[in-house]
Amino acid sequence: MIPWVVLERLYLYYSYVESLPPEINWVSSQMLGEALGISPDLVRKDMTYCDIKGKPRQGYPVQELKSYLRKLLKLDVNVKSVIVGAGRLGSALANYDGLRKNNMQVLALFDVDPEKVGKNLGDIPILALSELEGFVKEKHVQCGVITVPANSAQQVCDLLVSAGVRAIWNFAPAALKVPHHVQLRNENIVQGFVLLRIRMLEVN
Amino acid sequence: MIPWVVLERLYLYYSYVESLPPEINWVSSQMLGEALGISPDLVRKDMTYCDIKGKPRQGYPVQELKSYLRKLLKLDVNVKSVIVGAGRLGSALANYDGLRKNNMQVLALFDVDPEKVGKNLGDIPILALSELEGFVKEKHVQCGVITVPANSAQQVCDLLVSAGVRAIWNFAPAALKVPHHVQLRNENIVQGFVLLRIRMLEVN
Repeated sequence: MIPWVVLERLYLYYSYVESLPPEINWVSSQMLGEALGISPDLVRKDMTYCDIKGKPRQGYPVQELKSYLRKLLKLDVNVKSVIVGAGRLGSALANYDGLRKNNMQVLALFDVDPEKVGKNLGDIPILALSELEGFVKEKHVQCGVITVPANSAQQVCDLLVSAGVRAIWNFAPAALKVPHHVQLRNENIVQGFVLLRIRMLEVN
Repeated sequence: MIPWVVLERLYLYYSYVESLPPEINWVSSQMLGEALGISPDLVRKDMTYCDIKGKPRQGYPVQELKSYLRKLLKLDVNVKSVIVGAGRLGSALANYDGLRKNNMQVLALFDVDPEKVGKNLGDIPILALSELEGFVKEKHVQCGVITVPANSAQQVCDLLVSAGVRAIWNFAPAALKVPHHVQLRNENIVQGFVLLRIRMLEVN
């Protein structure tokens, strides 16, 4: 099993390689390291997970590296998802091209607001929260994204879990409890800002 | 200087303590640990940064703990900010109560879309990108939030830096370069999803 810190860096390499113009066929550990602020030695070490060999003066072949990384990071595996909470954040995630391109398939948004329920966001329907459990079961939804206020996050999480999702992606500032077979990832946006402020004040 | 991993946990403790109902006056390391999935021993160790003493059977006094943590995490320090990119994500952040309550003060949004420029989002004006530099200088903006597409993120970042911000909070999937005196924090949303999917597939 590849450690999380390595996976995080492998994803950075992938993003960088993917952003290269098509005429670039080779990328070196120096180039990658410089672009991403990682030492070239560490880049080379990480690449050993990738089963790809660099050439002394050229580096790694871009197309091959990309497809190795895609496989390693399982970027081609489609994940059927629903987003609970059709506010600005939920809508932003549902429309986010970067997630769509990486095979997060949003089947529906859910909300309790009668003004939203029944409408569409692009081609994604907004459904009533009361329909969530049935929908998740019927469509074999694997991942539930939570963008509701903190005080209803656990309730929504329990609903998703009992309906059968295998992963919870939580954007609410709440410490959720899930059973062991369900994977939970918290994105704590406020925490990001708090840490950035501390660093800024320490330095200046 | 408090290590980042400790600061991250201290913020979790703060969030938890802040969410407690007002009738709860004491919180123990067991309670905190259990709620957040952290060992009580580690909680107690982290609390030594806080200059607060727990009582053997009661734990820590909630109000005192809250105010110590607020001071330590500098939550009361106002940060003048602008958000560049008035799309769904930028708008979500501008309106996000959790950020407002923690003293991120959004003075303006900036965009290039003539349909958006000149309008308001709540009480926050949406201004033209061409006004960014002058605005940041005049208002002494400290923090620039980037929610533009990846291919224009570095350009926006350079503008913000040359106008004088001290911190960049970047939501674009781009590896930005900033000078040493500017603090950079990247929130890579797609990476979060990628890692969650890998974990889900590994376990199931």
